[in-house]
Amino acid sequence: MSLMKKFTHGGNIYKVAKEYGMEEEKILDFSANINPLGPSPLAVENIINNLSLQQCYPDPDYCELRNEISKYLNVASDYIIVGNGATELIYLFFRSMRPRKVLIPVPTFSEYERAARLAGCEICYLPLNEEDGFSLSPQRLVQNLEGVSALVLCNPNNPTGVVLPRNEVEEVVKFCNRRGILVLIDEAFMEFVHEMDCLTAIDLLDEFRNVMVVRAFTKFFGMPGVRLGYGITKSAEILEGIRSFKEPWSVNVLAAVAGVAALKDEDYIQKSKAIIQRERKYLLEELSKIGWLKPFETKANFILIKILDENISSSDLRMKLIPHGILIRDASNFVGLSDRFIRVAVKDRRSNDILISALKRCREETQ
Amino acid sequence: MSLMKKFTHGGNIYKVAKEYGMEEEKILDFSANINPLGPSPLAVENIINNLSLQQCYPDPDYCELRNEISKYLNVASDYIIVGNGATELIYLFFRSMRPRKVLIPVPTFSEYERAARLAGCEICYLPLNEEDGFSLSPQRLVQNLEGVSALVLCNPNNPTGVVLPRNEVEEVVKFCNRRGILVLIDEAFMEFVHEMDCLTAIDLLDEFRNVMVVRAFTKFFGMPGVRLGYGITKSAEILEGIRSFKEPWSVNVLAAVAGVAALKDEDYIQKSKAIIQRERKYLLEELSKIGWLKPFETKANFILIKILDENISSSDLRMKLIPHGILIRDASNFVGLSDRFIRVAVKDRRSNDILISALKRCREETQ
Repeated sequence: MSLMKKFTHGGNIYKVAKEYGMEEEKILDFSANINPLGPSPLAVENIINNLSLQQCYPDPDYCELRNEISKYLNVASDYIIVGNGATELIYLFFRSMRPRKVLIPVPTFSEYERAARLAGCEICYLPLNEEDGFSLSPQRLVQNLEGVSALVLCNPNNPTGVVLPRNEVEEVVKFCNRRGILVLIDEAFMEFVHEMDCLTAIDLLDEFRNVMVVRAFTKFFGMPGVRLGYGITKSAEILEGIRSFKEPWSVNVLAAVAGVAALKDEDYIQKSKAIIQRERKYLLEELSKIGWLKPFETKANFILIKILDENISSSDLRMKLIPHGILIRDASNFVGLSDRFIRVAVKDRRSNDILISALKRCREETQ
Repeated sequence: MSLMKKFTHGGNIYKVAKEYGMEEEKILDFSANINPLGPSPLAVENIINNLSLQQCYPDPDYCELRNEISKYLNVASDYIIVGNGATELIYLFFRSMRPRKVLIPVPTFSEYERAARLAGCEICYLPLNEEDGFSLSPQRLVQNLEGVSALVLCNPNNPTGVVLPRNEVEEVVKFCNRRGILVLIDEAFMEFVHEMDCLTAIDLLDEFRNVMVVRAFTKFFGMPGVRLGYGITKSAEILEGIRSFKEPWSVNVLAAVAGVAALKDEDYIQKSKAIIQRERKYLLEELSKIGWLKPFETKANFILIKILDENISSSDLRMKLIPHGILIRDASNFVGLSDRFIRVAVKDRRSNDILISALKRCREETQ
């Protein structure tokens, strides 16, 4: 697989619109896993109220934003670093800590590998098995940690939607802590998980200084455009390492004010959780009625689907849906998957119904 | 000098406001060199009209923005890379090209050194002489290039305001090209220079593939908060190097739409050039009437000033002006300067008058 292809993501409606001569607004984007409600109205309002901030440099310490995240997570702001999307923090983690060998359970988000490679790390994959529903047992993880200096856990995992329960995360983190292995836990999709409060690893940070958790405003708060994420760790070594490599003012002021307001928008947070819980169930049910598709159980806001019809590849299916105004994620470029796999986001009921009916129709079109 | 201190910049009104219990809006910030007109009204309007873009990932290729920059510079968009401020591109230049030894004429903007050090480069300073008004002769530059793999030129130079004329830039670039030395030219303040069109190095890029020019929306377009800059080079090696290290989606969508509109705002561009030309002259004249201050000639939108009164240090003067609601840049942490130096931005007439009268009064207060 070419490097270019390996690191291609969903969400590029611009390229699709250009290639197919479509208007960007008319594309229903199931390829990026974004909250279907869009951003919090309070976030948008706070941007409008603070447009004049553009003419000032951002506060290099982003105090107000870090304080708000501190309240949201109930973690002191000293342990919080904000970034230009969670992406910046993932890259800084590898660039500053330079772990020699990194274990990455796959399939997963490709930027961990790219960030680690660019920092000169050696990569080891731990393949998750389709037969086990891509689940990950702590025993198997621990058996594969020989010689490893850092482990990446995407929880819930993208693109599988599988969550590692907290007691299992704790078991792994504890083992890693004894061996001096760093653990990067990406919780970009955690807020979509119904039982989130008893699943997040943030409560483990007090005890385990070898861990950094990253979160983002991109997915749950529906703001991929503003580029805002954060990392939380109680490791002085990681905090200092990241600060020493971080470029100044990496977060846009408008992103920062949007973030501050979004975290306070309780109503939006509750509505978002409710719509995803309801629609995930609905979309899973509807997809499982389509005989040639096999959706995998998920706790996140996206669904990995296997195409059972051997005559249709993931790339065929993606292309067939574009004339219907639908963009899905061809998941074949995830390490550990093949051209049998696609991923779709959980959206609002109207959009989900359009997807379901297009999937049904486009199969007929091929026969 | 501590590393922390060495890499401290102007523009941190947040820290000053907190320390002195002042409201941020009430501080006249002469410490950051930003267009006093603020951002272009068209840029602000375009943000408001495109707030919904937040809910989409940015176009990873930023085609529209690169096309607009292409028209503005009359350079094909293939040669343009956009970044999260010019800062991102400066860091990427060193990270991807990894020059062994970097020559930096000082005093200058400190981020070149930090970026180069973090990429593992060795740093060589070329001290500019106060007696020559901190000017730089191509002969002296060329004599100091033995063993150097990359040269940084900040043109006009921050904090001195000195411009290296294009024939001299060309002489240096030509010499470097023959020796395989890379040249990074930072033109962040070029648009403030009256004779800009015959000074910019952009026209040299066709002939010299060893050069990258960086520019930003931060200073001239008055938008430090949105974080937007770009690099231009015709070197396939630099372009590919930077792309291979660049993190995805590093520019916020709202920054991108602001940039697109700002470049089209001819009226704002002309007004900005006019106000700076007029006020630079005025502020230089008024400052030179103050006997204990020696302003240096400048072509940019800031003025380096030597404090001739030995009883007042740069840090004293900065602190004395804060109760007057004025923040200036204590320039003592620039490598090559001392506690005799401050830097002030050129602002609108009302602000400039407030600065002048505060400078006069605060001296009296000390006697």
